[in-house]
Amino acid sequence: MQKLELRYEGKAKRVYATEDPGLYVVEYKDDATAFNAQKRGNISGKGEVNNAITAALFPQLEAAGVPTHFVEKLSDREQLVKAVTIIPVEVVVRNVAAGSFAKRLGLEEGPLLARPVVEYYYKSDALGDPLINSDTALAMGWANEAQLAEIRRLALEVNRFLTPFFEARGVRLVDFKLEFGVTRDGTVVLADEISPDTCRFWDLKTGEKLDKDRFRRDLGGVEDAYQEMLKRVVTR
Amino acid sequence: MQKLELRYEGKAKRVYATEDPGLYVVEYKDDATAFNAQKRGNISGKGEVNNAITAALFPQLEAAGVPTHFVEKLSDREQLVKAVTIIPVEVVVRNVAAGSFAKRLGLEEGPLLARPVVEYYYKSDALGDPLINSDTALAMGWANEAQLAEIRRLALEVNRFLTPFFEARGVRLVDFKLEFGVTRDGTVVLADEISPDTCRFWDLKTGEKLDKDRFRRDLGGVEDAYQEMLKRVVTR
Repeated sequence: MQKLELRYEGKAKRVYATEDPGLYVVEYKDDATAFNAQKRGNISGKGEVNNAITAALFPQLEAAGVPTHFVEKLSDREQLVKAVTIIPVEVVVRNVAAGSFAKRLGLEEGPLLARPVVEYYYKSDALGDPLINSDTALAMGWANEAQLAEIRRLALEVNRFLTPFFEARGVRLVDFKLEFGVTRDGTVVLADEISPDTCRFWDLKTGEKLDKDRFRRDLGGVEDAYQEMLKRVVTR
Repeated sequence: MQKLELRYEGKAKRVYATEDPGLYVVEYKDDATAFNAQKRGNISGKGEVNNAITAALFPQLEAAGVPTHFVEKLSDREQLVKAVTIIPVEVVVRNVAAGSFAKRLGLEEGPLLARPVVEYYYKSDALGDPLINSDTALAMGWANEAQLAEIRRLALEVNRFLTPFFEARGVRLVDFKLEFGVTRDGTVVLADEISPDTCRFWDLKTGEKLDKDRFRRDLGGVEDAYQEMLKRVVTR
């Protein structure tokens, strides 16, 4: 499948049109940004790791009943996906208080939440992806009621699948960010990626962070953490 | 009803115990704060205006089916209310994009929203009343599912009553903040106040602001705006 014109370039990926209007090629980059791109860098091998982890997880999620945009892995850094219109509402599922959530609410990082928290953020680099709620998404026309209900249902389904999946690999799934898209026939599907860029992974025994927080917080060992997560996802 | 010990002092009110454990006296102050108390001042006559407006509105809301903590007005600055435990979730209902909502989402102030937006904020001066959502309130135990559902229902009911009420008085109800409490028998009731401190009021014809934004934004004529709102609420 040949890449034609560049349709979208994000902070970590490029999306290309193909000769089939129903298919895109996604190319994963090593570029890393944090804090709404105020911090920029490069994580060597990240593109390959994130492409491989996403390509491993999405078919398993599909089999578990979560429709996704994923079609197939094309190369180390490329995958073929269904052409979708991305809903501009980023969905964060939290099992543990961490990151911006802990900071905003004055909590220590670490305690397991009494129940998973689903949050919506408006996907806007210019505004720094502000926290919103479902009323706001509806009033602004970013999604309709049926889409929001489906997004929430699927996000919790992803959490129900991935939490034990990672636990079996010695990893606590602390929180993660999902994006959803709408196919041309109107189906809401999981899009984007699931990777150490978009999840917080803590080693169950040591508590060691195995995700992008190593980059955000200058903890060192960034590349090793990404490779470790790839190993744990694909080798069992 | 005699005021006994001070039970709570907020930015704009003091709450006193009485000889009846089921009743409190609320005393309205002229103190004004904004931007999480970074800006402080005094609005002459504000205590009397807010006490009078709240004392005028709460019985009408009660008659419209919204249970409230209000019992009776005692004096220019005092009212008797039922003793409640305040739910630490502030509820904001928005009909028009304005204030922090407009800023957060990069919107001009002024456009009517396609539908009312209900937002929850965690009531915490130390944290600057951060925006939350219902999942967070539930996970943190700040309210239970039944209470949140009731809060949302009542907040929208208040909006349905007040929007035409103010429109008939030449005022657009842009947005407002409510607080709810739980009585000792477990009933969720509207508490706190409804006043130019807690609502945005725009004159329907001129667009003139008749609320605390005159203080927040140094627009002048603060006292006049409060008196004007009192006149419009009580003289029709």
